[in-house]
Amino acid sequence: MSKRFTLEKADSNSSARAGVLKTDHGEIKTPVFMPVGTQATVKTIEQRTLADLGARIILGNTYHLYLRPGDDVIKYFDGLHKFMNWGGALLTDSGGYQVFSLKDIRKINENGVEFKSHIDGSSHFFTPQSVIESQRILGSDIMMVLDECVPYPSEKKYTADSLKLSLKWAKECKDYWLAHGQMWEHSQMLFGIGQGGMFADLRREYIEGMLDIGFDGYAIGGLSVGEPHEKMYELTELSTELLPKDQARYLMGVGTPENILECIERGIDMFDCVMPTRNARNGQLFTTRGKINIRNKKYKFSKEVIDENIDSYASKNFSLGYLRHLIMSKETLGISLASQHNVAFFLWLARTARQKILSGDFIKWKKDFLDNYNNSS
Amino acid sequence: MSKRFTLEKADSNSSARAGVLKTDHGEIKTPVFMPVGTQATVKTIEQRTLADLGARIILGNTYHLYLRPGDDVIKYFDGLHKFMNWGGALLTDSGGYQVFSLKDIRKINENGVEFKSHIDGSSHFFTPQSVIESQRILGSDIMMVLDECVPYPSEKKYTADSLKLSLKWAKECKDYWLAHGQMWEHSQMLFGIGQGGMFADLRREYIEGMLDIGFDGYAIGGLSVGEPHEKMYELTELSTELLPKDQARYLMGVGTPENILECIERGIDMFDCVMPTRNARNGQLFTTRGKINIRNKKYKFSKEVIDENIDSYASKNFSLGYLRHLIMSKETLGISLASQHNVAFFLWLARTARQKILSGDFIKWKKDFLDNYNNSS
Repeated sequence: MSKRFTLEKADSNSSARAGVLKTDHGEIKTPVFMPVGTQATVKTIEQRTLADLGARIILGNTYHLYLRPGDDVIKYFDGLHKFMNWGGALLTDSGGYQVFSLKDIRKINENGVEFKSHIDGSSHFFTPQSVIESQRILGSDIMMVLDECVPYPSEKKYTADSLKLSLKWAKECKDYWLAHGQMWEHSQMLFGIGQGGMFADLRREYIEGMLDIGFDGYAIGGLSVGEPHEKMYELTELSTELLPKDQARYLMGVGTPENILECIERGIDMFDCVMPTRNARNGQLFTTRGKINIRNKKYKFSKEVIDENIDSYASKNFSLGYLRHLIMSKETLGISLASQHNVAFFLWLARTARQKILSGDFIKWKKDFLDNYNNSS
Repeated sequence: MSKRFTLEKADSNSSARAGVLKTDHGEIKTPVFMPVGTQATVKTIEQRTLADLGARIILGNTYHLYLRPGDDVIKYFDGLHKFMNWGGALLTDSGGYQVFSLKDIRKINENGVEFKSHIDGSSHFFTPQSVIESQRILGSDIMMVLDECVPYPSEKKYTADSLKLSLKWAKECKDYWLAHGQMWEHSQMLFGIGQGGMFADLRREYIEGMLDIGFDGYAIGGLSVGEPHEKMYELTELSTELLPKDQARYLMGVGTPENILECIERGIDMFDCVMPTRNARNGQLFTTRGKINIRNKKYKFSKEVIDENIDSYASKNFSLGYLRHLIMSKETLGISLASQHNVAFFLWLARTARQKILSGDFIKWKKDFLDNYNNSS
């Protein structure tokens, strides 16, 4: 496994850290927020705009892209970067999360999982080997192993059985990857994932199993699934204490601005979440002065810009009144401007956390930011 | 009435002309295509992108903006330019076209027209005075008089009666405008509209009536409503022969690329049409090699860019295969890229026609372009 992550600074007042993860599509300065581009697009945002906002890595979803446009199309286009014309880095999940959320239409055995497409009902079978093959075709800079994200809540017995199967699959993913290697000209990394539900001992056992196999980086999965925030923080802290300091740590699917800062404090480097784009579609804005529901009538006559502290076209050039008009009129430009602003905000949040870690002010800044964020709107 | 239009060149082989219309929000070089921004947005396209594409004037719809966000909001924001942050010029219609299309929910008398909102069913009354007042509030660089766009087909008696009422309203619009003048710091123009259905003598009578009142420019309305193209061309030609050479001529709601070139040949300077954005939502692209339905399976594996001859981000940076994937996946980015390209194409079409008029090659270029456009896809 190649040495791709460099730790630049460890905060002396917390487990927070600043680092750099090198990919063949650019350096990623951590902590980092990764916008989610499920179907080869971060919903409503142009690729040039993502780059302008400072996004250096975005996600693609293997399940969605495998079904549509399909591996054959992606392969014909020489991978996902070229297909969607994205020059930055890409991380793809294994597809497991989506498949396991299709509760009524999947069957699992030790070799993999059978499921029916949500698009046309056709049957498909994902194996540890097939999801790595799909991700080789996608050419993502960071690939993820196939695992089961256990539902919340789950029994300990179920979670422990799931652990054994997922560790077996993780090993098979790595073996397949070692046997085949990259498909395109750029190199790819493979990350392991620590699951274990809400059980500290299983979380430990899972991570130790992953470390035994050995990956380019490690994710923590199965959190932010409905558990109390304190539980998420406790299990994140437990996990980062076990993980090697010289490799990147990725907390999957997290979360709110507060979640992200709390987990940066606990040693996480990478985050992804659909919240900025999904909530934009409902008119929710994340701003440096707190959350805003733009549908609220009080913004009808507001000349205030969306967020003068966020350096993006959407944030600084349009009033809340105009944005509200677009959203109330069901104009997609409104959703796009809200999405652009929200993504810019999440990118800014992780970027600022990094600056504050480097300058030694992280804990103080985090407290001041959250006091202001939670109290002013 | 101020002198805002300058004729630069009259084509020696046709009635085509190149000119410049001066507004306080920039010079508009004609022939020009004006993208339609019904609800204070050209659907799915950012204002900065419109400017990049070369749009110098866009439309707003008085009916829609009067209902939502409402004149009170627009006035509070000091007009439509500032509300939507658009630095170019704006043309607004009178709202009449929309109101008269609400067949079951409007009542007309000599003072104006009563109608019910399509949004909430509330009752409203538009008069010649009220639509000018709304357009003063909007602050459009070009305002239009209230008129009735008679349905196609209509009886001659109905059309002649409509003519009398619309001429009365046009005079009242001008009187109100003369009595009140501009609301904001920039000046506004008022255009008359010639209707007359499919009747050459009524078209003549209508235009002569408008010329008697006197406006800053003249539109031709009530065409492209379902009549044969030859009829549209015949009535357009009849109209431009009557209109003064030193004022701008605007053919409302037209049309296809072929319609636009044919009517440029017949002396029209300004066009607007929802086709580029509306058809984009159905996956139809207008390209220099003809029309494309991007949903066609043959584009699934196409690496060809949307249109290498059109200088826009959308046209040159994405393959037909990727755009098809976005449209098939119902991703709004696909609709936005298709809309951007289509608008860029219509702007390019009018801009190129202008260049060819100036260089004396218009008729030859028009023939070559249409031969290629109609035969190659």
